[in-house]
Amino acid sequence: MTVTAPAGFRSAGIAVGLKSTGKPDLALVVNDGPRRASAAVFTSNRAQANPIIWSRKVVAGGTARAIVLNSGGANCFTGEFGYETTRLTAEAVAAALTAEGSVDDASEAVDAERILVCSTGLIGSGDQTFRDRIVDNVPALAAALAADDATAPAAILTTDSVEKTAVRERDGWTIGAMAKGAGMLAPGLATMLVVITTDAVLDDAQLDRALRAATGRSFDRLDSDGCMSTNDQVTLLASGASGVAADEDVFAAVLAEICDDLSAQLQGDAEGASHDIDIEVLGAASEAEAVEVGRSVARNNLFKAAIFGNDPNWGRVLAAIGTTDAAFDPYAVDVSFNGVRLCHAGGPDRPVEECDLTPRRTHVRIELFAGEAAATIRTNDLTHDYVHENSAYSS
Amino acid sequence: MTVTAPAGFRSAGIAVGLKSTGKPDLALVVNDGPRRASAAVFTSNRAQANPIIWSRKVVAGGTARAIVLNSGGANCFTGEFGYETTRLTAEAVAAALTAEGSVDDASEAVDAERILVCSTGLIGSGDQTFRDRIVDNVPALAAALAADDATAPAAILTTDSVEKTAVRERDGWTIGAMAKGAGMLAPGLATMLVVITTDAVLDDAQLDRALRAATGRSFDRLDSDGCMSTNDQVTLLASGASGVAADEDVFAAVLAEICDDLSAQLQGDAEGASHDIDIEVLGAASEAEAVEVGRSVARNNLFKAAIFGNDPNWGRVLAAIGTTDAAFDPYAVDVSFNGVRLCHAGGPDRPVEECDLTPRRTHVRIELFAGEAAATIRTNDLTHDYVHENSAYSS
Repeated sequence: MTVTAPAGFRSAGIAVGLKSTGKPDLALVVNDGPRRASAAVFTSNRAQANPIIWSRKVVAGGTARAIVLNSGGANCFTGEFGYETTRLTAEAVAAALTAEGSVDDASEAVDAERILVCSTGLIGSGDQTFRDRIVDNVPALAAALAADDATAPAAILTTDSVEKTAVRERDGWTIGAMAKGAGMLAPGLATMLVVITTDAVLDDAQLDRALRAATGRSFDRLDSDGCMSTNDQVTLLASGASGVAADEDVFAAVLAEICDDLSAQLQGDAEGASHDIDIEVLGAASEAEAVEVGRSVARNNLFKAAIFGNDPNWGRVLAAIGTTDAAFDPYAVDVSFNGVRLCHAGGPDRPVEECDLTPRRTHVRIELFAGEAAATIRTNDLTHDYVHENSAYSS
Repeated sequence: MTVTAPAGFRSAGIAVGLKSTGKPDLALVVNDGPRRASAAVFTSNRAQANPIIWSRKVVAGGTARAIVLNSGGANCFTGEFGYETTRLTAEAVAAALTAEGSVDDASEAVDAERILVCSTGLIGSGDQTFRDRIVDNVPALAAALAADDATAPAAILTTDSVEKTAVRERDGWTIGAMAKGAGMLAPGLATMLVVITTDAVLDDAQLDRALRAATGRSFDRLDSDGCMSTNDQVTLLASGASGVAADEDVFAAVLAEICDDLSAQLQGDAEGASHDIDIEVLGAASEAEAVEVGRSVARNNLFKAAIFGNDPNWGRVLAAIGTTDAAFDPYAVDVSFNGVRLCHAGGPDRPVEECDLTPRRTHVRIELFAGEAAATIRTNDLTHDYVHENSAYSS
């Protein structure tokens, strides 16, 4: 159990033919209450898919009743027809929940505008077949809902090779989560769909604060390939079913753990990668500058290709950070690879032969000596497999 | 003849053992006057190689007498020893020119501070052997100087597969140029060394204006891999030997032609590339926004990998420009590939099957409908060979 580990939730995942492989591609997570608090963060890309446009309205309008997610099609740049598909999907879910006897707090039916929608897959896909496969199968999806479900996480995957899930228990409440994401991983957010559930008693504002803090230091610092998606959404739903009012700080800390854990799982499954690279920036004048410096290295193709070749090319690190506006003296910087300081004060230090880059986990430490702030950016190397997957697979 | 096509110049290129291949790796271009006007633009990377630090002082201090260039070592991040190597190189050139009877206008010897220095190759390289090979061989280099030289262009190449040169004649004066650059091509400037000579009669200020205008729309819009180098320098030297005072506007136009020609040559020889992609942005609110939009696409690895796979993935184009701050409505954009409009008003238009991306030359046209400004960014695709060259070759 993942998103149903907290009390008050049911979920399901089924195959409706959106994926050519016949694998599960439609998931639903329902908050059965008694409370229905929620929060969400969305891609900062100005080109936004139809489900993002829809879900923003749901979040702005009040608390969410359920979230329906499909893989096998992003429903992005599909025009008015695509937006209608999203709306019809939400209506089908609302109708199915109403049919099973669920009602909204203040009405006799579940309102479609309380249903969040997420889509992931090929951009541009969104024809009549795509719509019908989703809408016609929502009743079957609702019928499969279960409080001990294990099928939802697989139904949101695209090029992912493994399911990404996390669960934490604390003080009488639980957080559960599922995520998808393997490419187009750059922040604000990475290409990811994440659903996080909890049975803690918290209101919308508390959830929103905790979620923004947690994603800002986790998913927003995952930058696998510098490419920002059109469909990203991280959603947090709270049922209050534990009856326990969580301490807000404790909840925020556990939620941050969950998001950090999922970020590492996304990094570890990035398309074609052979190294998971953590770029730790220390001694920055501000946290924002630490992030800027780390990101400049994470997005440098020459650096990323060097790591693929097990070459601890610190010159490319300095050349990358020289392009930023961060406070530092290029000739006072130290750079270490996997614990070996190869560059001191902007010049050569230990011999590069002392550094072993063959392990998948790679740690680059950059000391700017310009202040006290720090940040770590997660990225991956640039490999033949990355080029292959993204030239042969249209997404 | 290239840089000696204009009257008043001699050049030479010899092999001194900096390149392991034994190919030519040290070049010299001398302005024999009667005038010695000059201008230069440098990398905007804050991490700058020793020859850049030196040459900036030369340019700030007055007109340049000669320029000495080595491949086989960037002399970057090599500390005080590296800077001394650059200074000693300039002194050796000044001594050699003095020995052959040349004098500066106002003294009895050639001043080292009138000698520009450029280096390219592996960052971090710069030991005693590197220094000695250059300094000890400067007399032989000076002895090889000739007004009909054809050896200099090859001596500045690194991973380039071909020499890049251009010559134009107009109104009684001539411009000649040689360039190197094959990777780490991103502006402000790309990784390039360029020497341009002319026998037109122009002063420093005229040269500076013409050079900044020409490079701003050529080399600064070449963005092969988004990686900015530490060693870039474009130098323009004017001998006045034609005796013809060039019309400043005509000279600027011809210089712009030369720089555009060399930019196309650099794009065509980019490491590992299989497509030369021109990204034309039309209808932008300003030229700066047109450049921003074009660059966001040029630096998008998913777009670049798609082109390698001959996939006209317009969704990745929209996802890339959605990350910019430029004025536009993502759902009012048109995108064409090689003349076929695949995206209209942010949705699908012609079938992608109508578009043939197999030719090396690739034209992407983005119409923003937000204004009247336009710009074209030159880039390349992301290929297996790019990854191979930059993971196996330490630079």
